[in-house]
Amino acid sequence: MVQEEEKQILEKITPTEEERRLVYGIAEEVRRRVEEELRALGVEAEVRVEGSVAKDTWLRGDADIDIFALLPPETPKEFLKTRFLDAARKATKGYRQVERWAEHPYLECTLDGIRLNIVPCYKTRPGKWISATDRTPYHTEYVLKRLNEGLKAEIRLLKAFMKGIGCYGAEIRIGGFSGYLCELLTLNYGGFRQTLEEASEWRPPILIDIEGYYEGHPEDALELFQHPIIVVDPVDEARNAASAVKPKRLWEFVSAARQYLKKPSQIFFFPREKPAPKPEQVRKKLLARGTSHIALAFRPPKAPPDILWGQLFKAEQAVCRFLKRKEYRVLRSACWSDEEKQAVLVYELESRRLPAIKRHVGPPVWMTQHSQQFLEKYLGNKEVATGPVIEEDRWVVYLKTGRTDAKSVLKQTIGKEKMGIPKAILESMKKTLKIHADEEICILCENAEFSRFLDEFLVGRPSWLEHNNTNRKT
Amino acid sequence: MVQEEEKQILEKITPTEEERRLVYGIAEEVRRRVEEELRALGVEAEVRVEGSVAKDTWLRGDADIDIFALLPPETPKEFLKTRFLDAARKATKGYRQVERWAEHPYLECTLDGIRLNIVPCYKTRPGKWISATDRTPYHTEYVLKRLNEGLKAEIRLLKAFMKGIGCYGAEIRIGGFSGYLCELLTLNYGGFRQTLEEASEWRPPILIDIEGYYEGHPEDALELFQHPIIVVDPVDEARNAASAVKPKRLWEFVSAARQYLKKPSQIFFFPREKPAPKPEQVRKKLLARGTSHIALAFRPPKAPPDILWGQLFKAEQAVCRFLKRKEYRVLRSACWSDEEKQAVLVYELESRRLPAIKRHVGPPVWMTQHSQQFLEKYLGNKEVATGPVIEEDRWVVYLKTGRTDAKSVLKQTIGKEKMGIPKAILESMKKTLKIHADEEICILCENAEFSRFLDEFLVGRPSWLEHNNTNRKT
Repeated sequence: MVQEEEKQILEKITPTEEERRLVYGIAEEVRRRVEEELRALGVEAEVRVEGSVAKDTWLRGDADIDIFALLPPETPKEFLKTRFLDAARKATKGYRQVERWAEHPYLECTLDGIRLNIVPCYKTRPGKWISATDRTPYHTEYVLKRLNEGLKAEIRLLKAFMKGIGCYGAEIRIGGFSGYLCELLTLNYGGFRQTLEEASEWRPPILIDIEGYYEGHPEDALELFQHPIIVVDPVDEARNAASAVKPKRLWEFVSAARQYLKKPSQIFFFPREKPAPKPEQVRKKLLARGTSHIALAFRPPKAPPDILWGQLFKAEQAVCRFLKRKEYRVLRSACWSDEEKQAVLVYELESRRLPAIKRHVGPPVWMTQHSQQFLEKYLGNKEVATGPVIEEDRWVVYLKTGRTDAKSVLKQTIGKEKMGIPKAILESMKKTLKIHADEEICILCENAEFSRFLDEFLVGRPSWLEHNNTNRKT
Repeated sequence: MVQEEEKQILEKITPTEEERRLVYGIAEEVRRRVEEELRALGVEAEVRVEGSVAKDTWLRGDADIDIFALLPPETPKEFLKTRFLDAARKATKGYRQVERWAEHPYLECTLDGIRLNIVPCYKTRPGKWISATDRTPYHTEYVLKRLNEGLKAEIRLLKAFMKGIGCYGAEIRIGGFSGYLCELLTLNYGGFRQTLEEASEWRPPILIDIEGYYEGHPEDALELFQHPIIVVDPVDEARNAASAVKPKRLWEFVSAARQYLKKPSQIFFFPREKPAPKPEQVRKKLLARGTSHIALAFRPPKAPPDILWGQLFKAEQAVCRFLKRKEYRVLRSACWSDEEKQAVLVYELESRRLPAIKRHVGPPVWMTQHSQQFLEKYLGNKEVATGPVIEEDRWVVYLKTGRTDAKSVLKQTIGKEKMGIPKAILESMKKTLKIHADEEICILCENAEFSRFLDEFLVGRPSWLEHNNTNRKT
């Protein structure tokens, strides 16, 4: 049952009659045109509206119309890449069209702020999947069969909650909860509040198995899916519908759920957007911390968002490992991109410069050969501040580090040494990389989106956390 | 066989005929007087010259005359503490007398640079020891039986070598090789060079069992003596004659042995004493390192040297552990004392001040109660620079440290919190402690001995190591 607090929210997130008419009108028209175009090619495809529009669970102003063409299983894969895309293009003439690629290509179109995806899949039986999208019609069917008006509202609340706390979406950039996953959770627990209540008490391992595929042998599911949360897909026991959920998002949701139940508020659904801080404000904030920051800014390679973000996260980690290997003390890191012109990897270090002297432990004295080599290397060596000296049973030297600046180390290394940065990113870096340290980073804050990102990175606290702040002086 | 290089050395370290006559004269006279004084008390004690004088293995100018009174086993311990000491004092009237204490008291006397120890022990059979000194007469006997003129020279070479490289002496301050241990090693291996050659190839576990007490079951010796080197005492299978040897000294000896064999030099026996650096020189050296130093200077408590040094080392370690617990990064530490007026604990830190921000990891989000407590503690807390933020499945905050100075932390803590500093040291510290940081330490360098110690601490390299420096430009 929807509670008082949520009624006001539902009024804001349920599509209006006008939006409904518009969306259904467009969906049906494009569906028909795609069907016709395919028939003209001699393909007997069933073309259907899928996803949240088909289920009437989309959020106001956020419709994503999914038109799926269910092709006969004998259709060659080649057809999907060529003639199918042509047909889709013809069917959506007049729309802005972008070719996208998941496991196979599909067409994304936009008109008047409404987004359409024209996606091919195979008409096949469960378990006999030919492509990853073949499950979608079954997902729609599964959810539709169990839905009623009340549950649609509950699903909308959960989706809007996830969106408000930044946990909505299975794309790699987010690593959160997909729309389908929100539907499954609501169906499983019976409603929005119930889902929050149950989630509040989740602890590892989290296994939700609606259809009971693993009843009596849950250890098989835990073995098969090595993910922080497992929600067995009702239409495919071999798939975890929650495989995209990163630990951070999972536990943000859990914590936000607890906070909301303790003190419900619209702030969880509609977070206040803070103004982007000005470069001067950022400068002050950075200096006040007393630590060092390094930003690697470059033009991101052209790639679908999931590919790009996957590579950005890998690059972020690779540089982090490199800095640690060079003995810089990295406190935190993050990355940001507008997916087009600018990508930035950000690192907070205890200090840009190394400690003046570092301890370097050599071999035990009883390893004669190694000891001899160690002495030959370090006796009279100008980099030695202290030693060689015996500590317990080992040779040790204390080396002057020259306090090398992380900025210059990165400048000298990127593109010359293997660091584990994905190739496409590395190529972009070679051409466009600019490294900024400390105050220099402020120049990037001319971009309001980056400035907002950096501010959030420095603050760390999710905004919904402020709501229940018992310490806050009001 | 003594080699060419060592002949010159022997000429310098073998006592002259004049010294011999003097030492034997004094030894015999005092021996006789102690015997008489004891007889006057009605005690039938056998009084004998023991140690290196008895064995004729002492180094020129370094005679330590040990006069042992072998008391009947029924003598009460009380007698040793009172009337025995009186008798010893009477027998050495005119000498400077200091009462010392090992397991029981003994008298140390000095006259004209000659040192005498008047030590009581019990005349008992091996294994039936009443006091720790009871073994000494048996040690003398054991070595004397196996000695000849050639071996005496070899023993003198080994002792002088150990002394030159700073590894001679079982006292806690040194933690090195006793005279008796040098004798045993020489007897076992047959000579000075042979000992060096064998030691060059020592590797753990090192077990030397001349009398073969553990033949066929060496694991029992390794189990019984948990020391870096085990030399089973020929007169007592339950005693490790090398138990005082610290790993550092053991491996310094091994390494020096290798260096000497590769390129013999008198420098190992007679190290050049460097002039004590002036405070201004020390200041420059400290600043050039780019690290921070903290010195704790205080008047040492009155105690026999072994007790004092044991406590100083414990205090050094306790303060070190405390600093690390407070997250200061300690590179090295050492301690120094003139055993009378001044004791100094020295620490080199990467920095006197803490990093500006530290990561503090909280509970996993699924621990509901702990998470709630963590949030209550840190939300809105002014010490938080970033967070609370979820990383993987845990709450984390980044705290401002205030960059607290190690000097002021120590000032505030010593004497107020339990740190594990031995009580006697702590009492002295409470009254006389002065803490110096960085340049302030130079004031202590007015004391030439401390200045030399600090310089050696900073350099680290043993001076004999320089000798074979293949990298050195000459």
